[in-house]
Amino acid sequence: MLGEIIAIGNELTSGRIANTNSGFAAHHLFQAGFDIYAMHTIGDTPALIGEALKRALNRVDFVLVTGGLGPTDDDLTTEAVSEALNRPTMPNLEILSLIRQHLDSHTEQPASSLEKLAWLPEGAETLSATSGMAGYQLVHGNKPIFFLPGIPCQMQSLLVEQVLPRLATWYQGRQLSSVQRVYKIFGKTETEINREVEKLTLGDDVAIGYYPVFPDVHLSMIIRYGDKNATKLLAEKTFHLIENKLGSSIYGKDQDTMESVVGALLLQKNKQFSVAESCTGGLISHLLTSVAGSSSYYLGGVVSYANSMKTTYLGVDKDLLQQHGAVSSEVAEAMAVGIRERSCADISLSVTGLAGPDGGSDEKPVGTVFIGIADELGTHVKRFLFSGDRHEIQQMAAQTALDLLRRYLLQN
Amino acid sequence: MLGEIIAIGNELTSGRIANTNSGFAAHHLFQAGFDIYAMHTIGDTPALIGEALKRALNRVDFVLVTGGLGPTDDDLTTEAVSEALNRPTMPNLEILSLIRQHLDSHTEQPASSLEKLAWLPEGAETLSATSGMAGYQLVHGNKPIFFLPGIPCQMQSLLVEQVLPRLATWYQGRQLSSVQRVYKIFGKTETEINREVEKLTLGDDVAIGYYPVFPDVHLSMIIRYGDKNATKLLAEKTFHLIENKLGSSIYGKDQDTMESVVGALLLQKNKQFSVAESCTGGLISHLLTSVAGSSSYYLGGVVSYANSMKTTYLGVDKDLLQQHGAVSSEVAEAMAVGIRERSCADISLSVTGLAGPDGGSDEKPVGTVFIGIADELGTHVKRFLFSGDRHEIQQMAAQTALDLLRRYLLQN
Repeated sequence: MLGEIIAIGNELTSGRIANTNSGFAAHHLFQAGFDIYAMHTIGDTPALIGEALKRALNRVDFVLVTGGLGPTDDDLTTEAVSEALNRPTMPNLEILSLIRQHLDSHTEQPASSLEKLAWLPEGAETLSATSGMAGYQLVHGNKPIFFLPGIPCQMQSLLVEQVLPRLATWYQGRQLSSVQRVYKIFGKTETEINREVEKLTLGDDVAIGYYPVFPDVHLSMIIRYGDKNATKLLAEKTFHLIENKLGSSIYGKDQDTMESVVGALLLQKNKQFSVAESCTGGLISHLLTSVAGSSSYYLGGVVSYANSMKTTYLGVDKDLLQQHGAVSSEVAEAMAVGIRERSCADISLSVTGLAGPDGGSDEKPVGTVFIGIADELGTHVKRFLFSGDRHEIQQMAAQTALDLLRRYLLQN
Repeated sequence: MLGEIIAIGNELTSGRIANTNSGFAAHHLFQAGFDIYAMHTIGDTPALIGEALKRALNRVDFVLVTGGLGPTDDDLTTEAVSEALNRPTMPNLEILSLIRQHLDSHTEQPASSLEKLAWLPEGAETLSATSGMAGYQLVHGNKPIFFLPGIPCQMQSLLVEQVLPRLATWYQGRQLSSVQRVYKIFGKTETEINREVEKLTLGDDVAIGYYPVFPDVHLSMIIRYGDKNATKLLAEKTFHLIENKLGSSIYGKDQDTMESVVGALLLQKNKQFSVAESCTGGLISHLLTSVAGSSSYYLGGVVSYANSMKTTYLGVDKDLLQQHGAVSSEVAEAMAVGIRERSCADISLSVTGLAGPDGGSDEKPVGTVFIGIADELGTHVKRFLFSGDRHEIQQMAAQTALDLLRRYLLQN
């Protein structure tokens, strides 16, 4: 089944914003068994929008349109579609009532402008009106057209939760069955993973992609085969081979993140955790607390950026700081011990290092990071040298610390 | 001057590789004064390539084509162009000689496959043959067409070093000058900003776009006018009007972030800062320390997730927690006072709230957040109710806290 993707927005044709929507949609549609004939990016120009839509309807089986659905004057997609397909806009009562409810509680909003969102082309069916996201479906000449907002997180959730299932039902029986999985890997390069996977005999029905998604590498697998059962069997066999080959370098799959995996392990092992951060500046705490329910295992942390914070809040000895410097194995150890004891945690991490851009020396260049891990038996510190800019060094240090904790929890 | 961009490659239409080339080209062309009418991404299919190229030549002034110039079987751009524009391919002697020199030193390469690179459509002029990069220019019906390799680094260097100067010469005197600016706004919706800006008389030479980039809204302005000086004058007048209208809702422009603006103000006012975070879980510290040089004004912070952390690290009274609950104005105040005194800061923030998804009540629903700000004169606490998922509530709370600090610093 062939589709076309049309992305709309002057911010895209002027190159001010990178169009990530079309690639995301193409990727997921392709994985679900649909091919993309062409993708177009055009400005907020009704004539162009109409022309692109009509041409696509003449040559493919479905069309996906993103962008230009908002309430402001430069959002012209619905108007263009109405004109091009000769479907006058009319108010959708469900959306109108939601907007009016919203206006009742926020009276400062201009009604007329927001109510524009409720006017859809004749025959339009909303995709997820109750979620407050714009987005609708039209069927024209027996071909489905999906209109999604340009805001990436909204577009992505509507695509995955609404468009893919609707398309699958629409074209039932005309597709190959497929199974997908993404493995999340940390600590190995794309090339290293590629070299290991190459040694396996996986066959032509297994498509593999390697995607560096800093600081991880994602290994994507698509198995497209005969009927559902045969595909499922082949998928299980393949996943088994890959997991055996890559072992604990794989930290998770699909929706897993390093912080969700670590959180699940802390919960499962019933361990209370705290962290003392210097160069990562709160990033480890931020990652862990982005997971719902993290208060069950995460007690808290100290961001001891200034040396005075290290002494006051973690009990790091002033002489130790003087003698070895804040970026040292000794201070990392004292930080881990200090936060663990004062917060009454079972396990604690500490991170001290140089994220740059300034402050490096020959002995301790920018990127030097000490990570400590303390439990009731003692404290271990490891030294690392990360490359990249400030942001990358902070990300690598945080992910490495969480990965050390993950490996500790797997073994203890 | 209007152009179109055509990106070619099955790896793009399957979503396996993100197409960064078109956005890069659009951005640089736009900045150089050229408008992009449309961008297309199509697979390695000769009929489609020919059709897209011919349609573009009918409606725009120049065309940029990327991808499909390599030596392998799936590189079909040159073949498609030759067919579509009726220009038989012929060997370019310069490239052929370079390839043969290369083959002499690397005999394992298949000659015939590499020699394919030397066969170009009649009239083609190479862009930078000596660099070893594919890429050529054709002039068809007095319109320039540029063919660039799909490899981003090659495409980018040829675009900047060859295409832009060639286009500038080609259209000398037919371009408008342009000035761009993006205002970063927090605390107002897209619609509210739209309504205020609408009241100004800005004229047709000022293009405005509104982009929600959570939790901010970006207001983008592009001024295109006559010569450089006239454009600059119009731009200054326009920026002045907008800044007067939106006032302190504008927190920064172009590359500014909330954390870089707040950091610059702390530095300028010579204030030492610390923060006590509960529901934001370290996000405020993470944002502030992502700015290089933040150690000049950021002392550190405590992430007091568990109540025990609030008493041990911030000196919050147990009775206060018992009586009012951790999410309360009283606890927010005690947290701000506690972190400020113990860290010896000039100013401190505190945040306590319910990020969800669980834990809300009728009195304090999910999204309730108390933000405190303490200085040597006293402490102020504000109550907020944010909507959205856990991630959005955390982001809104952190950005609101930083914005309060920004407004405090502007006034003190």
